[in-house]
Formats: sequence, structure tokens, C-alpha cells
Amino acid sequence: MNTTQSEKITPRSQDYAAWYQDVIRQADLAEAAEVVKGCMVIKPHGYAVWERIVAELDRRFKETGHKNAYFPLLIPESFLRKEAEHVEGFSPELAVVTIGGGKKLEEPYVIRPTSETIIGHFFSKWISSWRDLPLLINQWANVVRWEMRTRMFLRTTEFLWQEGHTAHASHEEALEETLRMLGIYAEFAEGIMAMPVIRGIKTRAEKFAGADRSYCIEAMMQNGLALQAGTSHDLGQNFGKAFDVKFQNKNGELDYAWQTSWGVSTRLIGGLIMSHSDDNGLVLPPKLAPIQVAFVPIYRKEEERAQVVEKAHALSAELRRLGTSVVVDDREGYNPGYKFFHWEQRGVPVRVEIGPRDVAAGSTVVKRRDDGAKQVVPMAGLAEMVSGLLAKIQSDLFGRAEKRLRDNTVLAGSLGEVAEILKDATAEKGGGKFVMVHIADDPACDAKMKELKASVRCIPLVDEHGGPGKCIITGQDVPQRALVAKAY
Amino acid sequence: MNTTQSEKITPRSQDYAAWYQDVIRQADLAEAAEVVKGCMVIKPHGYAVWERIVAELDRRFKETGHKNAYFPLLIPESFLRKEAEHVEGFSPELAVVTIGGGKKLEEPYVIRPTSETIIGHFFSKWISSWRDLPLLINQWANVVRWEMRTRMFLRTTEFLWQEGHTAHASHEEALEETLRMLGIYAEFAEGIMAMPVIRGIKTRAEKFAGADRSYCIEAMMQNGLALQAGTSHDLGQNFGKAFDVKFQNKNGELDYAWQTSWGVSTRLIGGLIMSHSDDNGLVLPPKLAPIQVAFVPIYRKEEERAQVVEKAHALSAELRRLGTSVVVDDREGYNPGYKFFHWEQRGVPVRVEIGPRDVAAGSTVVKRRDDGAKQVVPMAGLAEMVSGLLAKIQSDLFGRAEKRLRDNTVLAGSLGEVAEILKDATAEKGGGKFVMVHIADDPACDAKMKELKASVRCIPLVDEHGGPGKCIITGQDVPQRALVAKAY
Repeated sequence: MNTTQSEKITPRSQDYAAWYQDVIRQADLAEAAEVVKGCMVIKPHGYAVWERIVAELDRRFKETGHKNAYFPLLIPESFLRKEAEHVEGFSPELAVVTIGGGKKLEEPYVIRPTSETIIGHFFSKWISSWRDLPLLINQWANVVRWEMRTRMFLRTTEFLWQEGHTAHASHEEALEETLRMLGIYAEFAEGIMAMPVIRGIKTRAEKFAGADRSYCIEAMMQNGLALQAGTSHDLGQNFGKAFDVKFQNKNGELDYAWQTSWGVSTRLIGGLIMSHSDDNGLVLPPKLAPIQVAFVPIYRKEEERAQVVEKAHALSAELRRLGTSVVVDDREGYNPGYKFFHWEQRGVPVRVEIGPRDVAAGSTVVKRRDDGAKQVVPMAGLAEMVSGLLAKIQSDLFGRAEKRLRDNTVLAGSLGEVAEILKDATAEKGGGKFVMVHIADDPACDAKMKELKASVRCIPLVDEHGGPGKCIITGQDVPQRALVAKAY
Repeated sequence: MNTTQSEKITPRSQDYAAWYQDVIRQADLAEAAEVVKGCMVIKPHGYAVWERIVAELDRRFKETGHKNAYFPLLIPESFLRKEAEHVEGFSPELAVVTIGGGKKLEEPYVIRPTSETIIGHFFSKWISSWRDLPLLINQWANVVRWEMRTRMFLRTTEFLWQEGHTAHASHEEALEETLRMLGIYAEFAEGIMAMPVIRGIKTRAEKFAGADRSYCIEAMMQNGLALQAGTSHDLGQNFGKAFDVKFQNKNGELDYAWQTSWGVSTRLIGGLIMSHSDDNGLVLPPKLAPIQVAFVPIYRKEEERAQVVEKAHALSAELRRLGTSVVVDDREGYNPGYKFFHWEQRGVPVRVEIGPRDVAAGSTVVKRRDDGAKQVVPMAGLAEMVSGLLAKIQSDLFGRAEKRLRDNTVLAGSLGEVAEILKDATAEKGGGKFVMVHIADDPACDAKMKELKASVRCIPLVDEHGGPGKCIITGQDVPQRALVAKAY
């Protein structure tokens, strides 16, 4: 593919939004599909990261009893109208198929923006007794939402995601599922993406259209903006009633099923980029890096080449035996500097250099992508050392991201103070903060935050900021502070 | 989910098409999505089979240097028109999005029926030199083709598939790739699906719209009908010219890239069903079975229960250590007969029964799904025995399918003979044959076969039927026999 190596990456301090686009281009993750409005092409390196994300999540879903299935892309337009809030939330974003096989359709189809409606329809056919519950389904799919302002990975007209859809015999069980999946998202974000998150509940104004309550994980990007990284919805009996999902309970009475839905998407890749990457390009946490270690043989003469390349292959084989994903960059016609740059921009966590003098000395030079630290490491025991280093990088990345989150979380006691704290924060210039304030779960209060171009991101499930207080807008008593921030 | 156990499966001899639908329903593989014309829901058991297919193929694609990527679902309508044959082939089948975000679109988008056009557009941006070649991309995706007559898995308006798209510096390399991927499909079909296939080249009338030549694998279903199970296309420079995919060759001259595309889809699951299943339901080859072994504990009293269930779990753990996928059906409230039926209909290759007397005797009863053979097997060494049995079942399934193919392949020397052989063959009644005839690669000859409701399926790459002869329609000399059959 076209090598764009010589193009520069805008420094973060100059323009964070431009930096983000540059990192994506230089790491060859994706490119805007200008001919398809708001869409993008996920290029091989970006797709390989997505495959790692899918593998990690899919395993967790299966371990908790969920099964994958696949429902139609096209949904009869009338289905959306069956749940009043749902249609209101999604109609402005729909792509509508009006022609099929050369003929105007009697009833148009919409391309799924999410699948609660079509899955609700099938749940009503599959569920008749408490014995059929819980029904735990997940779908990996593409969805389309007609977006006005798009940003690669973060908000695109089409995106890839998973959507879990479950049905339960009681609200208690449904709520337990909602929180279980939120917990899986949080554990994945922190343990695998090295991205600390705040688990919380959305305000009523910010919840999913059709849910009773929505739970979310919110992460802080390097510019201090919030990113909603995953959501899990307690749907109550709303879709159960809209789609007649009824079951006979243990007492022989008919009741509507209690449902949940939950999802994460390719947006996570945007969060990954903005959690760890630097002015030299992408930085990937080892647990999600499609390539964890790149060996770069260094040589001038042909006889040196054979020797260092052979050694690189032998050492890489040892690393592979430990379950590490390795590439030996023995491409001809490219100098070592080019190769260093290549793997650095693509976020490979560890680079191992081997030259003729290293072979003679029985050592290598190992470089960390995250902090740039270099060290000479003996070939004997290299595999174990690098394996340990990968674990260290993973935890260091999390540690740094967590410190940033802590350092940029502040308290505010009045609307004026919130306004002052957030006034200069933008996606481009940075300066965002997580502002913890007492604020009522009231659409009027959410609207006040919107005036500041901010929003109530969530009411954290664990209150670490001192309990009750008075709402900065209404003055009413509220049990704890909520998280307010500017967000993607 | 709703248990449909008591519903009967129509015997194959009575109505093969009804049998096919019944097997799908009873194995809980899929169901027609009546509310979305021509579409289906792939239910968890069906999707699990697809996941096994994806895993096996994806590994083979990656081993041969291909990388996965993802391109937009929506394609500008004008793109289709850039390749004259392509638009002619696909326009009657398009789903068209005319409204997005509440507004009529200036240029409608079509939902991809296949992605040569949109990928061609991006290849032209990514390729500029011979150094960028070969470019080897694969995409796992959903596609939509507005079909008039649909059958679950075999022909649905939306289906899941993979589409490989590659670009090369010479026709020789492109053709090599086309045949390499055909070889991978054939090896997968025979080695993993236990489904023998004929590798061949399509006639000019039957080739993919936009290809220079199309290669295919054709399988024989139990009713003697042919199923095109995979195709690999030599696209020549057709899409290169349509989308201006140019590169500078080693001599410094500009040339158009030589491209290929190749795909298999969820249709393979239809082929799988019709290769091995019987009047009792689904039969899966062990290498694609999501569950390979089902343990059914048999007991009357509670103290027996604990004992047999414990033993079943201990034995199943040994099998898992050998890499076997096992379920222990310890559900309460269902009798053994129900469980036998349950796993049988779902195609699980081996069942292991353990009752109190078996525990006392240190033995189990092992039953093969494919031929119904039962034997008493000592618990000591059970895991190794079952593991070997799975391999035996896999090869027996292939052996039986291959014998069927051989027994139902016949020669014909005239048009009248072909007509006579195929006259009563239908999807419902069976009686299909693979008829090997000398026939010219001429659209007029293909048309003659269409009059018999048959088609020239392919000209086999390996001629096993005696070399040259005279075309049964035109009388001209042709180098070998071609395969004619009724087909799905």
C-alpha cells in the first residue's frame, strides 16, 4: 500500500483533532470513504485491532452464557414506530431502502440503527414460558445512523459493533444482567485496553431511546474530553409491550418479558488511540496489539544479513512459543531507520534491534514504544524478558491513563465554576476536565449543561466525592455528585 | 427457546425440499424472517456452525498472506455503472437507499451486492507501483441481493459471506491467485465439510458479471442436484480499467492492475445439511460441529444422579483436554429420551450414555450420529476412543458423499439422452444426476440446457471422462466433457 511515512504528525499541543487524524493515517488504521458520506474504510491494521477486541469480548460473552445469532439488516419501517421513544430517538438518523429489485417497495425498510425492534419481534415468537428465560443473545453486526458530523471511529454513519439482547423473567434478573455486562465492559476497558473508566448511570435526558435506565462507562481522552465507551440498558418491559414478548411465569400468569440491551463498537478504537498514543504515532497496549514485537535486523553486507536475519528468526520463534505475536522485518530495500519509523507509527509495543555486533556480543537492543526507553538485553533469556516487559508496558499504560484521569478530575460548587473550568476546553485545544458536581437528574439541568457545550456524562455507581449536596441548578438535595464534561 | 421436538421431519423420500426445511427447524439452525422479504434469522446453533466455518477459512486466508479489512455497506449507484457487464448482472437485484437522515439523497446508494466496485475505487488510491502489489484483501460482510425465490441458507436476500479482493502485477500472478483460492475452497469443502467437489471453470454464459473467467467448486446434494459452493474469479483488467487502478511496472511503464475476487457464503451451511443429514435430522461432520460429543447421564433416583453426573463431567474433562468440544446434558426435568432426540436432531456426532449400571461396570454406551452404530466402551481410554471415532466419522461421511457423487455421475452422448436422464429430477423428488457431456462453451449451448431446466455447471479442471469429443449441440470438436446438472 502507499507509504505515507514522510508525512508528519501534527503535535498534540498544536491541534489535538488534527493529531488524531494524522495518527490514524500514519498507522494505516483507516481512511475516510469520501464517496460514501460519513463512512470509512477500516484498513488491515485497524481491522486487526478490531479482531483482537472482538476475540476478547466474544470470549467474555460466551463465558457468561450468551450465544451469537444474526438478525436481518433491514427492518420494516413500521417496527420502529412501535416504541414511541425509540422512534423519536432514531428517526432523524435512518437510512431508508425504498427500492428493491427494481421496484418501489410497498413498505420501506430501514437499515438497522440498532436491533431492539426486529429482535423483539423474534423474541415474541421464541418465548412463551419462564422455561425459555433467560434468553441471552449477542449479535456482531454493522449498523447505520445518518450522522451530520462524523469523525473516524468515533462517529461514522456506518459502524461495526456488537449488540447484546436478553430477556428475563423479572426486573431483578434483567437489572443484574445489565450491570453484569457493564462490568464486563469496564473490566475489558481497564484490563485489556488499559483505559480507566467511570461506571455510571445516565440521566433520564441522556438515556437510550426506549430504555428505562441506561448505564455506561465513560473514559477520559488525553485532551480531557469524555468518551462514552459502552452502554448497557435496562429496557424494562418497554419493548416487551411494544412487541408482545409475553411469557407464562411460574405461577401460571402471563407477564411481559424484562429485557436488556448493551453494546460497544469500533468507537473503542478511537478511545484506544486517544488514551495512549503520542506525537510519534499510535501506541497500542500489548494485549490488543496485533503485532506485539517487531524484530529489525540491521546489516550492511550480504554475509551480515544472513547472520542477523537468522538470529532474529530464531529469537522470534522463542517469543512465539510464549504466545507472543512477532514480526521479523526482513524486507529488503528498506533501511533500518525506515523500519523503526514504520513499526513505531503503527504502535508495536516492543522493538528488538539486532546488528552484527549484537550477534557477536550475544545481545540485542530492546526499545519500548510507550516511553522510548532502550536497553541492551542478552539473547539468552530475551523471550522471557520481553514477555515480562509487555506485561509491564500494559500496566504502565493503565497507570499513566489513570493518573491523567485523577489529575484532571475536579470538583465544582456552582454553575459559574463549571462554566469557568470548561470554558476553553475543545477537542482541538484540549483542556477538558471531568467536573464532579451536585446536579439533579432533571432534563432542565441537562439542558443547562448543554448551554456550556457540556453534558452530564453519568451519575457514578461508586461515589468517590463525598456524598450528598444541593443541586447547583435547582438547589434541591441530591444524593451524590455527577460527572459533567465536554464529550465526543 | 421454544421446543419444537415433537414436530416431525418429513422423510427425504417423500419430499426432499420439505425435509430440508424441517431439518433446519428441528436443528434450530435458522428461521425465515417473514417480515423481511427473503431474509432469515440465523439462530444460535446455525450461527455457531458459521463461526466454525469462518474460523477454518480465516486461518487459511491469513496463512496465504491475506489481510482482513472492512469497506462501506453503501455504494454510490454510479459506481455499479462503471463496469458494463457488472451493472447488467447486478441491477435487477439491488436494494436502493434513497432517503438518509430524513432527506432525499441526491445520489442514491445501493446496498452492496458484492464489493468489486467500491474496493476498486480504494485500490486505485492505494496502488501506484509494482511495490504495492500483490495487494491481498479479504472482507467478512453481509450483502443484499433482491431475490425472487428464496430458500433458507441457499438463496436469501441478505446473506453473510467473505469476499476476497486482490490486485496483481501480471495476469499470470492473478490467475495463480484465482486458482490458489479455488484450491483452498476445495480443500476446505472436502477436508472440513466432508463434501466432495468438482473444481471447474464456468462457461462464458455462466461467469460472474465483470470477470474474464470464473472458477467454481460444485457439490452434489443428496437429491442429485448441484450446488455451487464457492467461486473464484479472474477479473482480468476489467475493474482495473473501470476504476483506474494503475501501477508503474518494473520497466517504469503504467499498466492496469490484474484483479481477482473470490467468495463463499452462508450457503455452505445449506450444502452441509444436504450432504450428510438424514430423516432423523441434522448430521454434522465432527470438524464443523460446535458440539462434538454430548454426554447424557441416565438415572432415576437422586443418589444415582449425583454419581452418573459426576462421572460424566470427569470423562468430559478428559475429552476436552484432547481438544474436543463436549456438553454434559445434566438438565433436570427432561428424560433421557428427550435428550437423545435433542442432540440427534442437532447433529452432534457422538453421544455418550452413562447410567448407574455403566458406572458399576466401568463402561459407557457410545452412539454414532451418522450411522446409528452403538457400542459399549470402557471408561478407561474412552477419551482416546471417542477422539479416534470422531476422525473415523469425518472420513466415513466424506467416503459416503464421494460414493454418492460417483454413483450418480453419468455420461451422455446426445441432447436427448441428457433430457431423458434429467427429466424427472427435482429439488423435491430428487433423482438428479451429474451428466458429463461434450458441449461447447457457447451461450447458445448453455441456453439449450436451460430449456431442460438444467445448466452447464462447469468444465472440470481435471478431465476424468475420456478427453475430446463432439459437442452434442453444435457438433464442433471440444477438448473434454463438461458437467451438466439441475442445480440450486
